[in-house]
Amino acid sequence: MYPDSLKNLIESFKYLPSVGEKSAERFAFSVFDLDDEQVELFKQSLDDVRKRVHPCKTCNVLTEEEYCSICSDEKRDSSVLCVVEDVKSVFLFEKLGMFHGKYHVLSGLISPLDGVNPEDIGIDKLLDRIHQEKFDEIIFAFRPSIEGETTALYIKKIIDDLPIKITKIANGVPIGADMEYIDSLTLERALSDRKEVS
Amino acid sequence: MYPDSLKNLIESFKYLPSVGEKSAERFAFSVFDLDDEQVELFKQSLDDVRKRVHPCKTCNVLTEEEYCSICSDEKRDSSVLCVVEDVKSVFLFEKLGMFHGKYHVLSGLISPLDGVNPEDIGIDKLLDRIHQEKFDEIIFAFRPSIEGETTALYIKKIIDDLPIKITKIANGVPIGADMEYIDSLTLERALSDRKEVS
Repeated sequence: MYPDSLKNLIESFKYLPSVGEKSAERFAFSVFDLDDEQVELFKQSLDDVRKRVHPCKTCNVLTEEEYCSICSDEKRDSSVLCVVEDVKSVFLFEKLGMFHGKYHVLSGLISPLDGVNPEDIGIDKLLDRIHQEKFDEIIFAFRPSIEGETTALYIKKIIDDLPIKITKIANGVPIGADMEYIDSLTLERALSDRKEVS
Repeated sequence: MYPDSLKNLIESFKYLPSVGEKSAERFAFSVFDLDDEQVELFKQSLDDVRKRVHPCKTCNVLTEEEYCSICSDEKRDSSVLCVVEDVKSVFLFEKLGMFHGKYHVLSGLISPLDGVNPEDIGIDKLLDRIHQEKFDEIIFAFRPSIEGETTALYIKKIIDDLPIKITKIANGVPIGADMEYIDSLTLERALSDRKEVS
């Protein structure tokens, strides 16, 4: 029904997460309204991200250099390490602009049920780094989940003897949330982790 | 914050309709998970649709040939012409598979308020075609709107003397709709266009 190249473009858009037939068609048709430079940039950047962008040698954050801009930044606090499960988390924290330490990006979280073991998520590289660099604190910033807990506990166990404070980001009721829509696990956690009003 | 090429890719995805910062980031990150052939097809098809796909000489449906597959199909009923406002409508009808006549695609609808006049939507080409080919019926399949009504009436006025039946697709309550959510204009139309129960 569609000309071949249009069909291929629709298929291509369907590679993107949560893009179905309808959205893919809509995207493909919108390409006719772009100007030449826009399409050129689109094609070029599809190429470039794959060719030029790779994980930072130290922390795995995406970069076009050998070391990422965060690792290279001497103004950052190198006594605190924030360990995250993916690169996106780093960008989330950086957008927030509240954390000024260093990061380390794992390749996901330990999940024995899915066959993901410690060696699969690059824990060795993290441990090497922890032993080499002298951190005062390591913060785990994983999504609240059994996998997150497992991964945090696994790492903590190994480095427990080192003089490092090990913390994790707080779980609880999100700000602005409607109490009646909070799930019971979150509420349970919020209650058990309650803080003194000061 | 992001490497340059990743930033460019995010910007590129933002060209797409209703894709904001968050979705664009999500799309851009997903490109790392594609394999090389997929990225190649993506780039190639972005290029191809722009270079190879163009409007059919007769009816404006998108095609890679001089004439589209519908115009070239001798099995189609050339006595009925369905006039639509954009190429997408043709693909919608074709997916339905119920209409076996020919199409003519306008470049939108007449909208004096937006400065869109009859000459802007290619009505001359349609009129030429109507005078050359001998249609028994012309069906207007525009979205229900003042612009749709205006365009249909405008064309009807010009060809009213020709021995052609002029119709438009029915408006009314959509099948499966919940009556209490139907807007009053639709309900009004559904009432005035009521059909005898047979």
